Amino acid sequence: MIKKIQGGICASKGFKASGIHCGMRRKPGKKDLALIVSEVPCVTAAVYTTNKVKGAPITVNKQHLADGISQAVICNSGVANTCNINGIEIAEAMCKLAADYTGIKEDDIIVASTGVIGAELKLDPIINGMPFLVSQLSDEGSIDACRAIMTTDKHVKEIAVEFEIGGVTCHLGGIGKGSGMIHPNMATMLVFLTTDVKISHDMLQKALSGDVTKTFNMLSVDGDTSTNDMAVLMANGMANNPEITEDGEDFYRFMRALNTVNVYLSRCIAGDGEGASKLLECVVTGADDEETAKKVAKSVICSSLVKTAMFGEDANWGRVLCAIGYSGADIDVSKIDLDFESQGGKVALCRDGCGIPFSEELASRVLHEQEININIGLGDGPCKATAWGCDLSYEYVKINGEYRS
Amino acid sequence: MIKKIQGGICASKGFKASGIHCGMRRKPGKKDLALIVSEVPCVTAAVYTTNKVKGAPITVNKQHLADGISQAVICNSGVANTCNINGIEIAEAMCKLAADYTGIKEDDIIVASTGVIGAELKLDPIINGMPFLVSQLSDEGSIDACRAIMTTDKHVKEIAVEFEIGGVTCHLGGIGKGSGMIHPNMATMLVFLTTDVKISHDMLQKALSGDVTKTFNMLSVDGDTSTNDMAVLMANGMANNPEITEDGEDFYRFMRALNTVNVYLSRCIAGDGEGASKLLECVVTGADDEETAKKVAKSVICSSLVKTAMFGEDANWGRVLCAIGYSGADIDVSKIDLDFESQGGKVALCRDGCGIPFSEELASRVLHEQEININIGLGDGPCKATAWGCDLSYEYVKINGEYRS
Repeated sequence: MIKKIQGGICASKGFKASGIHCGMRRKPGKKDLALIVSEVPCVTAAVYTTNKVKGAPITVNKQHLADGISQAVICNSGVANTCNINGIEIAEAMCKLAADYTGIKEDDIIVASTGVIGAELKLDPIINGMPFLVSQLSDEGSIDACRAIMTTDKHVKEIAVEFEIGGVTCHLGGIGKGSGMIHPNMATMLVFLTTDVKISHDMLQKALSGDVTKTFNMLSVDGDTSTNDMAVLMANGMANNPEITEDGEDFYRFMRALNTVNVYLSRCIAGDGEGASKLLECVVTGADDEETAKKVAKSVICSSLVKTAMFGEDANWGRVLCAIGYSGADIDVSKIDLDFESQGGKVALCRDGCGIPFSEELASRVLHEQEININIGLGDGPCKATAWGCDLSYEYVKINGEYRS
Repeated sequence: MIKKIQGGICASKGFKASGIHCGMRRKPGKKDLALIVSEVPCVTAAVYTTNKVKGAPITVNKQHLADGISQAVICNSGVANTCNINGIEIAEAMCKLAADYTGIKEDDIIVASTGVIGAELKLDPIINGMPFLVSQLSDEGSIDACRAIMTTDKHVKEIAVEFEIGGVTCHLGGIGKGSGMIHPNMATMLVFLTTDVKISHDMLQKALSGDVTKTFNMLSVDGDTSTNDMAVLMANGMANNPEITEDGEDFYRFMRALNTVNVYLSRCIAGDGEGASKLLECVVTGADDEETAKKVAKSVICSSLVKTAMFGEDANWGRVLCAIGYSGADIDVSKIDLDFESQGGKVALCRDGCGIPFSEELASRVLHEQEININIGLGDGPCKATAWGCDLSYEYVKINGEYRS
């Protein structure tokens, strides 16, 4: 049984968090600096962007996590600390500041930045803000940390779950930020996960790496894979369950909890994509293999024409067929079925690759909802996949035409 | 010497064209049916979409062009004749109608359709319009045919050039339509090219297939590869030049003329992309191989975040670096140089992978123009590539949120 609970990343025993406005962002009061701290060192797994242009924090974290251990995260929003001559130096200075004020070892600090690429990251606001940031650390600080890492996000993305392993109650919590430049490949734009589960580093990394291929990597807002994508999972073992060191029932339970959290965050990030008015969930079934199902689902979710049709609440289903066709997947067009579905109902549009008559009135009702499912059948194969995205709106263009200014 | 002349596809000797409103499109007077006819049969090369969901006309053309010969093109706009149960039947009926009224053999007719996928293509308007369409065939009909194949295009895309082969004056003309669902792969959304050059089928296909990889395939409006993309090159030999049957000076001259025409049409299609206010030309130099240069150029042109920044005239150059980084090309980030250039001037933004100070005022002036060059240096390699695209505007969202309705 996986139960949703309050508390976000602080729901896991021994984790505190805080978030403050230190002045990195111009908007008064917009929180822009977050801190997450565990009472004890954590076994830590991470996945990073595959973009060749990488934020300086990624480079520093790879060094700091070489031993698989961390104890705190420091993260700013506003400036990405990417393509800067002194980027590494600045990222290391952020870690040192966090270490000085928390007493945690410098190389057990994870650093992250999100915001404009190429802009200089000035240390002064962080230096000035650090004492207050540390003083604000609390069991209820998850929401503040979550707000501090937001950029153009409109909604907080926070979740925690409770579950049992070996008869012991365990917790897993997460916060995330997304919005723009979201097309993760091996990771997503800043997701921090905490758990009090006792688990070996190998199994923790296996869990995270395996799950992101089904969750964050199946998510796209705009097709742009960020330079700073990162998902980190910290496990401090304070639940005192029998340590997970191999596959089996306990690992499976942990994987299920992790998937619950990551699916929730993926849906949040997609539904709160820049300018989004709708969350799109594309479910592909009947594929011969999982790779085919994934390719098709992701192609549909990424299509600008599908996204604008959804924004316009127009049942222009041919665009979905078009996106399936150019997905690169090896499919039999004459077996494709397509429905749109939502709380407004379900409308069948295409059977065996050809259009069928449908009620425009029903289609309008279905597409008028905020969460739309695009259900695609590829035949009678055993495999399926789900991808998440959002519509493409005027607001997306507005936000991104004006972002830096 | 390649000289631009008037006349479009009718500039080539022996070609006539016409375009009329037959009633396929609801808007009164919007031309929606085009015919192109050569006096004599033409050696014909074609390239088609790689989308697995293919318009019925593509299937029919592959049969009709099995012998490499055609003599006429019939094309409607409004309905794509794709994902229809009776699509092939309808496409064949269109050829038969054109054959009946022109006296040309049915399997020498090329058929094309563009518009909504999955909507039924009704033959009645074509049956009723055919006599008038044929009666309108003229040496000056290129512009009418061009207008008849337009959908959301705002501007006609037409060109003709004159050049010499073996001391004989030859001609090559083209019309195209683009606008949305434009991300050609092996071909582009409806381009018809005519020439009076005498050339063997092998060399004609070699010329077209080779050139599209540098022109139409380097073009993207919205990343969606259409189901109906097609570029056709008809050569009727009426210039009476010594027939081109092998590589050499004559073939080279023909290739240069073809490239001139196709670059022009590619730029027209990009600059007139749905909702576009700017033409973007991304020139990548210094690559170790052409494939790397192409990947980088196309990735930048396709980035939603680069496109919206250009729409907002915001020198948010970090997004260009981001798109280079996720292009999949094997590049050395520490060697990347980046400038924006236009009639307003040139602004250097990045050297050796890091940002450099620049004048925001100059950047604004550069980005305020209608044609923007994004110049990327990857190092000191010998290879380069160019890609064309457009900005992403409110208008794109508007057009595509409402297209079908």
